[in-house]
Amino acid sequence: MAESNFFSEIFLFPLWGKMAPILATATETGAEPEMVLAGVLLSLVAIYIASKAGGEFFSWLNFPPVLGELVGGVVIGISALNLVIFPESGANSSSSVIINILEATAGLTPEAAGATFQAQSEVLDVLAELGVIILLFEIGLESNIRDLMQVGIQSLIVATVGVVLPFVGGTAGMMGIFHVSAVPAVFAGAALTATSIGITSRVLTEINRLNTQEGQIILGAAVIDDVMGIIILAVVASLAKTGEVDLINVVYLIISASVFLVGAILLGRFFNDGFVFFAEKFKTRGRAVIPALTIALSLAYIGAAIHLEAILGAFAAGLVLDNLDQKEVGRELEELIRPISDVIVPIFFVTVGTKTNLSVLNPAIPTNREGLVIAIFLIVVAILGKVICGFSVFGLGPINRLAIGVGMVPRGEVGLVFASVGSASGALSPALDVAIILMVILTTFLAPPLLRVVFGQAEEVPETSG
Amino acid sequence: MAESNFFSEIFLFPLWGKMAPILATATETGAEPEMVLAGVLLSLVAIYIASKAGGEFFSWLNFPPVLGELVGGVVIGISALNLVIFPESGANSSSSVIINILEATAGLTPEAAGATFQAQSEVLDVLAELGVIILLFEIGLESNIRDLMQVGIQSLIVATVGVVLPFVGGTAGMMGIFHVSAVPAVFAGAALTATSIGITSRVLTEINRLNTQEGQIILGAAVIDDVMGIIILAVVASLAKTGEVDLINVVYLIISASVFLVGAILLGRFFNDGFVFFAEKFKTRGRAVIPALTIALSLAYIGAAIHLEAILGAFAAGLVLDNLDQKEVGRELEELIRPISDVIVPIFFVTVGTKTNLSVLNPAIPTNREGLVIAIFLIVVAILGKVICGFSVFGLGPINRLAIGVGMVPRGEVGLVFASVGSASGALSPALDVAIILMVILTTFLAPPLLRVVFGQAEEVPETSG
Repeated sequence: MAESNFFSEIFLFPLWGKMAPILATATETGAEPEMVLAGVLLSLVAIYIASKAGGEFFSWLNFPPVLGELVGGVVIGISALNLVIFPESGANSSSSVIINILEATAGLTPEAAGATFQAQSEVLDVLAELGVIILLFEIGLESNIRDLMQVGIQSLIVATVGVVLPFVGGTAGMMGIFHVSAVPAVFAGAALTATSIGITSRVLTEINRLNTQEGQIILGAAVIDDVMGIIILAVVASLAKTGEVDLINVVYLIISASVFLVGAILLGRFFNDGFVFFAEKFKTRGRAVIPALTIALSLAYIGAAIHLEAILGAFAAGLVLDNLDQKEVGRELEELIRPISDVIVPIFFVTVGTKTNLSVLNPAIPTNREGLVIAIFLIVVAILGKVICGFSVFGLGPINRLAIGVGMVPRGEVGLVFASVGSASGALSPALDVAIILMVILTTFLAPPLLRVVFGQAEEVPETSG
Repeated sequence: MAESNFFSEIFLFPLWGKMAPILATATETGAEPEMVLAGVLLSLVAIYIASKAGGEFFSWLNFPPVLGELVGGVVIGISALNLVIFPESGANSSSSVIINILEATAGLTPEAAGATFQAQSEVLDVLAELGVIILLFEIGLESNIRDLMQVGIQSLIVATVGVVLPFVGGTAGMMGIFHVSAVPAVFAGAALTATSIGITSRVLTEINRLNTQEGQIILGAAVIDDVMGIIILAVVASLAKTGEVDLINVVYLIISASVFLVGAILLGRFFNDGFVFFAEKFKTRGRAVIPALTIALSLAYIGAAIHLEAILGAFAAGLVLDNLDQKEVGRELEELIRPISDVIVPIFFVTVGTKTNLSVLNPAIPTNREGLVIAIFLIVVAILGKVICGFSVFGLGPINRLAIGVGMVPRGEVGLVFASVGSASGALSPALDVAIILMVILTTFLAPPLLRVVFGQAEEVPETSG
């Protein structure tokens, strides 16, 4: 790259290139640990600048900051600047601007570039995962388990309707209208099912609606449909691979998910007492945060190990650490988890943005056009299916059913998991793959402002009628 | 492993093993991202339990908690439980208990175990590096640049004497007493030079001595001898590789180190004003912490890119963000950086412990004996050389010169870098490699309690004389 050489000549760094092999000990994969660290540092700088530039700009526009963080991610990601990109998008190290900067300024050798890019991406992926784990833990902490139990039956209905409608609508439409064969049609339908709890819950927190009845129903339904979504994903992926559904697997997954969630809640008292016992005894720094994180990461591990989701475990951990504001260590925890969340959660949202490839939107490329038409269909089904599910809430009086439906719209990271698994299994045609990604992008980007609008309306209603 | 199979049979998890390939998309290196995340989660749980168990136990014994975190790391690391281990120690995935647990409970396939172990270790290494970066940033924030400038000349003298004495003594002794040839002798001497600023500064913070004259001289000298140490490492490593010293490289390294540190301090006003400007304008979460971390990570990147140390950049960033307690965002930053440091810094200290292989202490193995004798010699030179350098402080009246010398003793992570580079270059015999590691272990473990003792004495002197 011309600019890179220019930089290195201007700053007279050529000899550092020679020093690198002396100072670095290569790992088995050929990545230089010093270069991996340098790449992660530079990526984090880009991610933090993008998160604050986007977040503050959107906040100034009166949009949710989380949307700005996503857009900031899109700007530095695969769609525009190519600063923070990931190998699973098909990018290689030579298209990563960070890797080019490392080669120009830090003496990364071209031979080690591929392995360093791979290792750096693995680290950033885990940091983003830790970000969404901490996010869900914090949300769990802020949620009240009794409130969630009260709306439990409503959440279950909303989740079930919100899974069945888009799944049936999507699959039938793909087969009936677009004449897609059964397996990819079922995959497309399945990709419409799971709500992204992360994005909705952060927006709800930002507009101070998390602890409303609507917020709790959305949260509960998002948790439930996440579990349903993962089960459907496993079933559909095995269908795509073998052509048949392994019923024993399905039964095992359903049982393990139920045992895990119910078990975590039943053991809540034990975790809670354990946390308070240790945190009150401890005298050194991090006395409240470390025991709490240990519980959160343990449950996240169990969630990941049994092939549910790590974030479900983290959410369960936050949920069971309850009634904390009556204890000093509890208030300490709720206060101290915020700055930790402030630095790690943006990594998740910006990373989702960086992986969003807007070039699939370009209708000038013929292969995109079929995808665009299918995408429009999927987006309509995705939004309608979830919006309608909000109206399945019964007997709660003046509740904002539209807001509940809208809250279930964003597919976010869960939808992207569907797209990547489907793409990897070979079941999806490129057009269908593009269409699913478009559905994920648009539902994710539309939901936060829509959620503000529909909740804003609800807020004004009592004022007008009062 | 028998226990692992027992676990998996008890909990009836066999089918999850079959599910794993469906849900996971393998990366280029063959690591399954889900398994890498699960491995990191489990490792963090082990690290946090070790850090709190060790830290609280040592705090109860009235030892510095940081020493307990190191010992906690030794217990879960390569020396004992093999829970958290790293490939550079020669360990492979089958000896990692975490990997065995993943195979037994999370469905990790044996084929993917090696790549998953590698990727998990890379992630933990970067997390540990981020830990020491945040640690040094926090220390820099707590240090006052004017105080450091006041003791600048004293620090320079202490650092220079503390580098020259162990280097000359070590090299001469190795050649004269043990008849080691020139290159490995120079390497052993060089390994004795660089003080671990991380351990000393955390102990100084814990015993509330960081802002004493002694604390500031130690800190300044540790920073300076770190720079000297890295330059010496580069020179010695190139000597070991080519048999000759590349003078132009040496000159370049000296110039870049000086330009970097002086430049960062001269630009301090600019960073400081920039931080306050943005932090005061921002309205969303993390308004103070994110801009500060962006500066810290940027300077850390520059430090790593020019083959000094990332931690030097982070320390410089903390140092230049000065006079913050007069601004609201500054007080916010100093308060909010603590919980972040509380969760990430222990990862560094525990990891140093896990990498410490105490089995090289076993005198029953014949090859250890030569190393033990050389080790005793190196330890004596390492301690005496640094303790004596404390007495090179002049003209400051009643100052605790012994404490300054003792504060310079721990070699910690910097010494381990010397050992691993030397070992990788092939210049060091196994015995000499073992001896250097032993020197690092013992100086690291001895310094914190010694530092408490000598500072404790100093504290009692004024009370007796007053």
